[in-house]
Formats: sequence, structure tokens, C-alpha cells
Amino acid sequence: MKSKLLLALLTVTLAGTAAAQAKVEDAIKFRQSGYVFMAWNMQRIKANVEGTYNKDEVIKAANAIQAIANSGMGALYVPGSDKGKGWEDTRVKPELFTNKEGVGKVAGAFVKEANEMAKVAATGDAAAAKEQFGKLGGTCKGCHDDFKVKK
Amino acid sequence: MKSKLLLALLTVTLAGTAAAQAKVEDAIKFRQSGYVFMAWNMQRIKANVEGTYNKDEVIKAANAIQAIANSGMGALYVPGSDKGKGWEDTRVKPELFTNKEGVGKVAGAFVKEANEMAKVAATGDAAAAKEQFGKLGGTCKGCHDDFKVKK
Repeated sequence: MKSKLLLALLTVTLAGTAAAQAKVEDAIKFRQSGYVFMAWNMQRIKANVEGTYNKDEVIKAANAIQAIANSGMGALYVPGSDKGKGWEDTRVKPELFTNKEGVGKVAGAFVKEANEMAKVAATGDAAAAKEQFGKLGGTCKGCHDDFKVKK
Repeated sequence: MKSKLLLALLTVTLAGTAAAQAKVEDAIKFRQSGYVFMAWNMQRIKANVEGTYNKDEVIKAANAIQAIANSGMGALYVPGSDKGKGWEDTRVKPELFTNKEGVGKVAGAFVKEANEMAKVAATGDAAAAKEQFGKLGGTCKGCHDDFKVKK
């Protein structure tokens, strides 16, 4: 009887641990997906502001970045996701989980410039889009410098 | 002289092939990222319509899905990307590259319901969001059934 109870408890604990692990891995995979999808859209805006400007394509790309930036990805930095593998090993620095003020600053700057990018894209002004693209890219870099391990 | 020219030509060809390959792998990775990021947001809407409804979270999730749905992901189905590995091996069926009418139909239905999901989310009507979530999920399934290999 006792051993059965112990076995049952152990099974529940292992199942709980496996579920928590899966949750961490999913969270890392989801955030990596968000960043990489934004990277595609940054590439598209870059190609447009450096080459032939297609207003519609820039609008689509800027809108995608804006919506992802405002989606609340902070929720994907779940406890325990400072290490782990989503699509690949996370490169988040431990500071992201401790330096709340610093994270708030870079995240706020990113959302602000992403919102502005969508606004500027809607006007179709290629020169303004190029300038805003630079500002937006700066906020990506700002966060990477502080909170992402370099390859 | 002749062998140098041949070597140069060979180098250019190989570099071109490698670049094309990288382009295919990136395209697959970008589209997998888009779908998986949408999957996160579908999960969030599901949790809200089946549990405690948080209007703001549903709006954020629906807006992300809408912007990704309208971002022009069709451009990521580049020639040669019927096979290949992005984050993982693509599971696209060859039919996606040949059945343009069928693809147009499922893609159109998906975009339509994603746009409607964002509209419904903005109203904060939980019952309507639940109904629309069902319709949107149906369009995901419709495409998967026809154009994605099952695991």
C-alpha cells in the first residue's frame, strides 16, 4: 500500500515536472518565433528603404512588427526560462529576469518606435520610413546588447 | 588561364547555390515562426474564451494574428521551399505550390476570419469571441488538412 502511494506520488511529481518543462520549452519557442518573424519584417523594410519602395509591403511589415511588439511577449519570460531550448538554446541573459527597470526601459523604447514605424509606414513617405527604420533598429540592438548573449 | 576561369565560374556558381539554399532555409524558418507565433496567440484566446475572459489579452492576441495573417506570408513559399529545413523540416505538401485556386481559397478564408477575430475582440464580447475563435480555428484546420503533412 505504502509503495503504491509513493509510486503514485512520484508519478504525479514527474508528470508535473514534465509539464513545467514543456511549458518552459514552449515559452522559449514562442518568443523565438516572435523575434524571428519580426526579423523577417525588418529585412523587408530594410530592402524597401534601401531599394525600390513599395508602400504596401512596408505597411504590412510594419503592422506585423507593431502587433507583435504590443502582444505582451513579456509573459513568455516564464520562471525557469532563463535556460532551456525552444527552437534552439535560449540566449537570454540572466539580467533580463532581475533588472526590471532596465527591461522596462528597452521594452518601452521598442514598443514606442514600433508604433511610430507603423504610423510612418501608413503615410508612404519613404524618407521618413528610412529614418524611423533606423530608430526602430536601434531599439532592437539596445535590448540585444543588454539582454542577449552574442553568438 | 582556362583553369582559373573555370575555377572562378565554379566558385560563383557554388556561392550562388549556397545563397539560394540559405534563402530557402530562411524562408522556411520565417514562415514556421509566423505560424508558431500565431499558435501561441490562438492558445491565449482559447484560454480566455474557455476560462476567465481578459479583454485586453484577447485584443493583443487577435491583433497579432491579424497582422501576421495580413503580412503577405505567401512570399515565403519561394521556389524550392517545398522541401528543406528551417527550424525543422518543412511539412508543406507539394500541392501548395501547384493548387493556386485551393491555396487562394483557404488563405482568403483565414485572412477574413482573422480580421473578424480582431474586430470581435475589440468589442470585448466574450461569447462572440468564443464563436469567432471557432470559425478562425476552422480556417487553420482547413489549410492544414489540405496543405500540411500530418505528424
